[in-house]
Amino acid sequence: MSVNPNQVAGMHPNDPTLRSFLEVAPESHFPIQNLPFGIFSTDGDSPRAGVAIGEMVVDLQALESSGLLKTSASNAGASLFARPVLNDFIALGREATTEVRTRVSQLLRHDNPILRDDVALRAKVLHAMTSVKLHMPIAVGGFSDFMLSREHSLNCVDIVGGAAAGQLWRNWTYLPMAYNGRASSVVLSGTPVKRPRGQVLNEGQAAPVYQPTAKLDFELEAAIVVGRGNELGSTVGIAHADAHMFGVVLLNDWSTRDVQAWEAQPLGVFVSKSHRTSISPWIVTFDALEPFRTDGPEQTPPPLAYLNQKGQRNFNVHMQASIKPKDHAKPSVVCRSNLQALYWSFAQQVAHHTSTGCNLMPGDLLATGTVSASGPNAQGCLYEATRDGQQAIALEHGGTRLYLEDGDEVALTAWAQGQGYRVGFGECTGLVTPVDSNKNGAAT
Amino acid sequence: MSVNPNQVAGMHPNDPTLRSFLEVAPESHFPIQNLPFGIFSTDGDSPRAGVAIGEMVVDLQALESSGLLKTSASNAGASLFARPVLNDFIALGREATTEVRTRVSQLLRHDNPILRDDVALRAKVLHAMTSVKLHMPIAVGGFSDFMLSREHSLNCVDIVGGAAAGQLWRNWTYLPMAYNGRASSVVLSGTPVKRPRGQVLNEGQAAPVYQPTAKLDFELEAAIVVGRGNELGSTVGIAHADAHMFGVVLLNDWSTRDVQAWEAQPLGVFVSKSHRTSISPWIVTFDALEPFRTDGPEQTPPPLAYLNQKGQRNFNVHMQASIKPKDHAKPSVVCRSNLQALYWSFAQQVAHHTSTGCNLMPGDLLATGTVSASGPNAQGCLYEATRDGQQAIALEHGGTRLYLEDGDEVALTAWAQGQGYRVGFGECTGLVTPVDSNKNGAAT
Repeated sequence: MSVNPNQVAGMHPNDPTLRSFLEVAPESHFPIQNLPFGIFSTDGDSPRAGVAIGEMVVDLQALESSGLLKTSASNAGASLFARPVLNDFIALGREATTEVRTRVSQLLRHDNPILRDDVALRAKVLHAMTSVKLHMPIAVGGFSDFMLSREHSLNCVDIVGGAAAGQLWRNWTYLPMAYNGRASSVVLSGTPVKRPRGQVLNEGQAAPVYQPTAKLDFELEAAIVVGRGNELGSTVGIAHADAHMFGVVLLNDWSTRDVQAWEAQPLGVFVSKSHRTSISPWIVTFDALEPFRTDGPEQTPPPLAYLNQKGQRNFNVHMQASIKPKDHAKPSVVCRSNLQALYWSFAQQVAHHTSTGCNLMPGDLLATGTVSASGPNAQGCLYEATRDGQQAIALEHGGTRLYLEDGDEVALTAWAQGQGYRVGFGECTGLVTPVDSNKNGAAT
Repeated sequence: MSVNPNQVAGMHPNDPTLRSFLEVAPESHFPIQNLPFGIFSTDGDSPRAGVAIGEMVVDLQALESSGLLKTSASNAGASLFARPVLNDFIALGREATTEVRTRVSQLLRHDNPILRDDVALRAKVLHAMTSVKLHMPIAVGGFSDFMLSREHSLNCVDIVGGAAAGQLWRNWTYLPMAYNGRASSVVLSGTPVKRPRGQVLNEGQAAPVYQPTAKLDFELEAAIVVGRGNELGSTVGIAHADAHMFGVVLLNDWSTRDVQAWEAQPLGVFVSKSHRTSISPWIVTFDALEPFRTDGPEQTPPPLAYLNQKGQRNFNVHMQASIKPKDHAKPSVVCRSNLQALYWSFAQQVAHHTSTGCNLMPGDLLATGTVSASGPNAQGCLYEATRDGQQAIALEHGGTRLYLEDGDEVALTAWAQGQGYRVGFGECTGLVTPVDSNKNGAAT
């Protein structure tokens, strides 16, 4: 018990050779090199902050109350780790959150006896993942959805057809385009997705009808979780964007393509996507993703100065979407993509979002839009993969799909592959359930 | 002091003959028939709930602690009136908020001695408007901006020109179209509006630049303040929409038309409007607006059942926008319009917004979009009035404008005209200040 934690502080928390005293399977998404943050509760206790490692959750509030997590975050008054969302903690900014991750890494190392050898402390601080309930990690004040993938954008133009087919809008290579999403309907992975009704113009009809959507789709996305915010009227320069970026979650922007096609011009999407959006429970920090930086696609023309990012902009993160029909034993992967393919970067999202002085807030989500890549099976939504329901795709384990059917469970996942370990995101899932029996939408 | 308030409870709070013992000028926006809600503070005290009457503010927390405001709102635990925003109070729904307004009306009547004749109580409960500071009345979780005015939409199509000129989008008469706005940048009336920089494609140029906007505009709007919310996955039927609508504020959706023109296709507006949006401080309740219901324009084709509203949909509320250049003594009115002109109604906004199951939250703003009407000087923004800066308008008190100039103060106002009294909204103002000296937008 008398070991000074500084004795084991020599290695960087991202060092590939680090090992924990807790067992972590090689294919686990949560090795000691990851340490994503979330909110969990145990029976009868309030939701609080935790860190995932292997099959366990580290209770940050318990660590702090044991005196083992004295960081600048602990000086902010009432414990930031005892709160039901991470917003106040991540609002402190990168230095503070990095410090906590580094400290947790030290405490979990195989050669640090402080927690390893203290049975009573382990019982207090460590919970089996199977024994906890996960909650929304953040209160989402703002949700913006971008369109960072050139492949996705080209596919959409191609499917719509017309004069613009084969080339993007004139502004596309000058700014990372985006729209404001609906924050109130962002839910945690695992929340069922009831098929919505909506106003739709059916093919060949003169007038629209209000009916259950026949084109329910998923979108394979990731999203920045904003850490420290910026003041209204200020901008975040591209070189300072990292300081405002806490981490990344998976995001499924469930879409009703028939409602969307009818409503989207001229103001953009609204009720076609506001019925539900799912995010994964564990926020993977940008600290953990740092070793996986990589070059992005060449940006031609070069971005304006306020968007001109030096160095490696992108991250090599494999992404995958699967569908498991209700009568299937196993999911069928329907998309394999990679964040590396995105034309615009996370930092460019932040710089553009604030370019006119908009204030970002801790916990805001800045989503990538559908992450498609080039090549077969690399389309991040069924709209692209089936060309808006015109060409069925075959599922690996049998059957075909044009759009999602009731009973389908969609799972998004992602991971960065290290040498002998994976920095992963876990899953973002949602089960499609039938439209409810309220036929006229008149309930209150 | 022994008068039973029920003795004076016979008259409806909207009765045109009601008078208060407090002096209210005939042109005041806040007669006893109005009683709008807001948040105020006095020197050294915390922000709390108040009601405006004439030149005074009624302190609801003080009324409640004096035992004079025992309503169902008082039973909700810690005082809802002591909180810095009205969200928790208005979340109770129309019955609860109506009850409070009715009780305040009783206490302010000329023939009720309880407050009138108690000098000590009056000193505690009543504050001169000039002595208080007003605050944001709500925490805005969601901000949606609609396009309810047919005249505004037709003007926009006409200015853009092309094949679509003279007719609206095919979906326009079937649904009240809208987009998600940015909630974080909604500010209180009186907050200066710094001219933003943004990405703009100047005429005749091949590539865009990042520069101060040359086309800063106002938009004359009103917005529903949502009271009781609805659960995610539920819809609010048109006949039940009123139960979710607490009141209305003025809203100025400050817009940068050059940034907007360059960014808006295909996803809609984003940074061109997210720099700042202003609202008026006093929320005029739908209870107070009820006597001013009127027919809206005929809706052809008839709306689908979920949007088909019976009875009088609209409200006869005069709206006005003025500009006061910095060297002018008086403002020049540049737009006179009326909410009555809106094609789609407030209730239809709510029904459509929730049609796919989106959850509304207490304090959400559902804005009308620019309120234009037919006829001269009835265009609710400079984009329309000057045809995007092509035709200068003359100001009543001298000078012309294409777009807003530094030093211009824009004031929106609105009122419903009763017999001998006005149910008004006060003002929503903003002074345009110069772009800041940060030339490259690189501040953090």
